[in-house]
Amino acid sequence: MAGMLEPVSRMVNQLSKLPGVGQKTAQRLAYHVLAMPEDQVRELAVALYNGKKQVHYCPVCGDYTDVDPCRICADKGRDTSVVCVVRDPRDVAALERMRDYNGLYHVLHGVISPMDGVGPDDIRIKELMARLQEGTVREVILATNPDIEGEATASYITRLVRPLGIKVTRIAHGVPVGGELEYTDEVTLSQAFQGRREV
Amino acid sequence: MAGMLEPVSRMVNQLSKLPGVGQKTAQRLAYHVLAMPEDQVRELAVALYNGKKQVHYCPVCGDYTDVDPCRICADKGRDTSVVCVVRDPRDVAALERMRDYNGLYHVLHGVISPMDGVGPDDIRIKELMARLQEGTVREVILATNPDIEGEATASYITRLVRPLGIKVTRIAHGVPVGGELEYTDEVTLSQAFQGRREV
Repeated sequence: MAGMLEPVSRMVNQLSKLPGVGQKTAQRLAYHVLAMPEDQVRELAVALYNGKKQVHYCPVCGDYTDVDPCRICADKGRDTSVVCVVRDPRDVAALERMRDYNGLYHVLHGVISPMDGVGPDDIRIKELMARLQEGTVREVILATNPDIEGEATASYITRLVRPLGIKVTRIAHGVPVGGELEYTDEVTLSQAFQGRREV
Repeated sequence: MAGMLEPVSRMVNQLSKLPGVGQKTAQRLAYHVLAMPEDQVRELAVALYNGKKQVHYCPVCGDYTDVDPCRICADKGRDTSVVCVVRDPRDVAALERMRDYNGLYHVLHGVISPMDGVGPDDIRIKELMARLQEGTVREVILATNPDIEGEATASYITRLVRPLGIKVTRIAHGVPVGGELEYTDEVTLSQAFQGRREV
């Protein structure tokens, strides 16, 4: 940025790499940081760096963790016969907020996407198959997103898992609770019809 | 946040203190940081902390600087007979982007605002008066915002400076370039009429 102090433009530059943060927002954030007390800025910087350093993938499920294995994998109270397969750790966080599911997870860290050059070997499918070989899992819930890549990944995994005699299920697609039929797209409506249940 | 890893919730907590960053955005940013390479996170953290540590107020004008005095105050090519008074360093940055002004600045770091308990002694008015005593300044341009506090601050400073025989000017208010009369508020329109000039 023209006329900006070098340390400030370095802040702006780094901040603008964050998602949803453009040059203008990065500038506003940088000036805010300059106006913050020094110890608060230190706390922010340390939280970011230490967070990144302490948090890594769980060797079992691939979710973010700061202990090995992660708290969910280590939890004796959880049902080890069910594994829910998701694309990334954010999905685990979303499903955990529902407080309804008591099984385990498997994070793929991506979905199959030939367009982006991501094949089955680039995501944690091998690790999933290794877990299933242990014989404790009786159901695999496929909870990848209902988009092209998510569906392709789900059917790829289905083809691998079904021969093992393990039940494979897919989360339901339909009209979101609180949503309106009028504003729901045709594909979702069609899925909602196909997935209808007797009340 | 329920169920969130402690290092992650610390990141979210710190990020959500930034302006315009709510819980949701902070979570999205935190997950993005977790997915970044460690050295990039270090660069971000270091840029924030070092930026804050290296940048301080210029002892002369009060703008942000990493050298004393700041580059604008030290610039021999600038007109030392004109001082433009602004509320904060962001305003200096905005005016410098215009590349039209070659005088000096004085940053008040606030405006008089009895509602927020900010009086004349809480902003850098004393420092301005001390600079003016030196006798080199012949014009003070008041460039505080055209709102109640900005106007009150401008007229307070006018009353102090005019007796010193120094010219006091106020930036023009009017219809912004590219703006439309139809959507301009009455007060601005009225100011635009009062400030009309012969072409």
